[in-house]
Amino acid sequence: MTYLDNSATTKPEKEVADKIYKMLTVNFGNPSSFHKAGLDANDEITRAREIIAKTLSCQSEEIYFTSGGTEANNLAIFGAAEAGKRRGNRIVTTAIEHESVLKAADELEKRGFEVIRLMPDSKGRISEEQIFDAVNDKTILVTMMFVNNEVGSILPVSSIKKAVKRANAPALIHIDCVQAYSKTEIKPEKLGADLISISSHKIHGAKGVGALYVKKGVRILPMMFGGEQEKRLRPGTQAAPLIAGFGKAAEMIPDYKQQAEKIKELNAYAKQELLKIDGVIINSPEEGSDYIINLYVPTFMTSQTVVQHLSSQYGVYVSNGSACAKGKKSHVLTAMKISDKIIDKSIRISFSRNTTKEDIDSLINALRETVRDYPV
Amino acid sequence: MTYLDNSATTKPEKEVADKIYKMLTVNFGNPSSFHKAGLDANDEITRAREIIAKTLSCQSEEIYFTSGGTEANNLAIFGAAEAGKRRGNRIVTTAIEHESVLKAADELEKRGFEVIRLMPDSKGRISEEQIFDAVNDKTILVTMMFVNNEVGSILPVSSIKKAVKRANAPALIHIDCVQAYSKTEIKPEKLGADLISISSHKIHGAKGVGALYVKKGVRILPMMFGGEQEKRLRPGTQAAPLIAGFGKAAEMIPDYKQQAEKIKELNAYAKQELLKIDGVIINSPEEGSDYIINLYVPTFMTSQTVVQHLSSQYGVYVSNGSACAKGKKSHVLTAMKISDKIIDKSIRISFSRNTTKEDIDSLINALRETVRDYPV
Repeated sequence: MTYLDNSATTKPEKEVADKIYKMLTVNFGNPSSFHKAGLDANDEITRAREIIAKTLSCQSEEIYFTSGGTEANNLAIFGAAEAGKRRGNRIVTTAIEHESVLKAADELEKRGFEVIRLMPDSKGRISEEQIFDAVNDKTILVTMMFVNNEVGSILPVSSIKKAVKRANAPALIHIDCVQAYSKTEIKPEKLGADLISISSHKIHGAKGVGALYVKKGVRILPMMFGGEQEKRLRPGTQAAPLIAGFGKAAEMIPDYKQQAEKIKELNAYAKQELLKIDGVIINSPEEGSDYIINLYVPTFMTSQTVVQHLSSQYGVYVSNGSACAKGKKSHVLTAMKISDKIIDKSIRISFSRNTTKEDIDSLINALRETVRDYPV
Repeated sequence: MTYLDNSATTKPEKEVADKIYKMLTVNFGNPSSFHKAGLDANDEITRAREIIAKTLSCQSEEIYFTSGGTEANNLAIFGAAEAGKRRGNRIVTTAIEHESVLKAADELEKRGFEVIRLMPDSKGRISEEQIFDAVNDKTILVTMMFVNNEVGSILPVSSIKKAVKRANAPALIHIDCVQAYSKTEIKPEKLGADLISISSHKIHGAKGVGALYVKKGVRILPMMFGGEQEKRLRPGTQAAPLIAGFGKAAEMIPDYKQQAEKIKELNAYAKQELLKIDGVIINSPEEGSDYIINLYVPTFMTSQTVVQHLSSQYGVYVSNGSACAKGKKSHVLTAMKISDKIIDKSIRISFSRNTTKEDIDSLINALRETVRDYPV
């Protein structure tokens, strides 16, 4: 198997799976219970919260566990909008956010909020100026991703704070760090963020758990109601096994610099080999995340067929756009004003720290044969 | 360990943990991806959905996976209220629901809905007549639990449909079956239910996953927005390992009758032995669920201390009220008009199909010594 779809999901590390198994079979208490089984489970949650807080250079009480990135994004956006609606009406975001941000913003627009969606350039880039122009003194929320999940462009999120200050806006700043987390240093203070979303299964943890960082003193409203868990911002029995596994995955994040160098090399090698295939076009920006390459494959097959063909014939796993979109036309490439002809045959390859040069070679070989056997 | 807190959470079956481990280590794809890793993960979800549908005698497309019982309850209640608000304003529920229903109803009241909360009698029972009296032609939602989680009273949920018909109400009927599922037959049609909540970790599955049954043709609004998963009623990458484990747990539900007989005997034995301890009072109704016994322990310690004492001194795990409430005074016993003196020293013991007579003996011994050593 050549797994190059790490932006969709990553393979959990064995240590993570082992931790989860132990939680399921030994440490199975309800973390809200007062007996030892409960307290032990709760201790594991506390530990995971501390580990994750450390990776974000924040305090553990600023971490709230959710069921994943989508819930973290929804909670941040609805929670901030509903909490802030007396202070203003404008929400600033971009046209290239993840579905969970895009659709949440659409829903808020239906509810009467004014939503400004910044358009990217042809390489998926958003400029500082665009943010400065969009944020006014009625802006209550700016929500933007750090790294785009489809093309890898890096957004100027650390400029948002300046824009908010200059406009004297009552805005909270939410950064969707789902794709960036574990790959680059994320410091809420440096980013000027009030809210940060992260997800376990993108960092070699399990699906079904994520977290929202909420800066101390920042108040957002809950979306769900119930028990006392997560300080009532997110009630419901905590998924202790998944949370403990998330902690383990966070603990295993390697040194950023070493990792970055390795991936930079892989990326350069992959691009060099890809461009040797006649007709290939790279949709990703030059200076984007090295983990993601979005490219046009010159074949008569559409991207979904290419994905299935590479899978069935070569055991090479890549994607057409975001997994969450399940094959719908990419809103990111569309916003980049890439022609439908190109979009229809574009795929995404995405690396993890465990990706090897051999994985790239398998991909290149598979793509070369595909383009040869099924030309445009 | 004598684990008698099964209404808080159950120990996952080994087969469930094994299934989850395999999903984490082998079958780790994103179920929305089109390559084999994705399709394989999606197949597991399909299978789990089918198994769970079978246990509820419903169609698999009527099952929507959530992050647990709290989310299923919230989705049912907010989803139905928001979808029905043009047809009426009244929501009928009871004062003894789980926190996730109570607090969701409180929130809807704040948003302008009229919430009727039926009061139980001194044994935690709600009558058919109360339901008939409360449902009017402006009622858009009746939400009620099948089995109460703190005292085990069984609510007359199958009468709701008649009440709704008689009042000619545009109401959807939501039954919280979290405590009932796997212990008694649940047929949506027989119950007259449009919406049913269930949870994996109460049936020897993992924490972090539950499901909402939504009757075909019934429309409720989503709470979260994002990708195409769960027909957009519940977006976000599906927690495939937990869902597959949930399917395995559902597959392992034993024959209801055999199970019921065993637990009936255990319950009778436990009550007989408990009542031999001077001063013990059973708060649970005679004809309630045999899985739950709520009782007053004659000691000077408060119930939380009793729970901790039984845990640390005897390895016997019971609870004071609902785990989700984390030690807050029981709203159920309060609604039953039990005096604070009794409430303060009341505990819940709750069985599972794996509970043995030896477990009961350990409990009785521990309680007997506790009452002897720390009398009122």
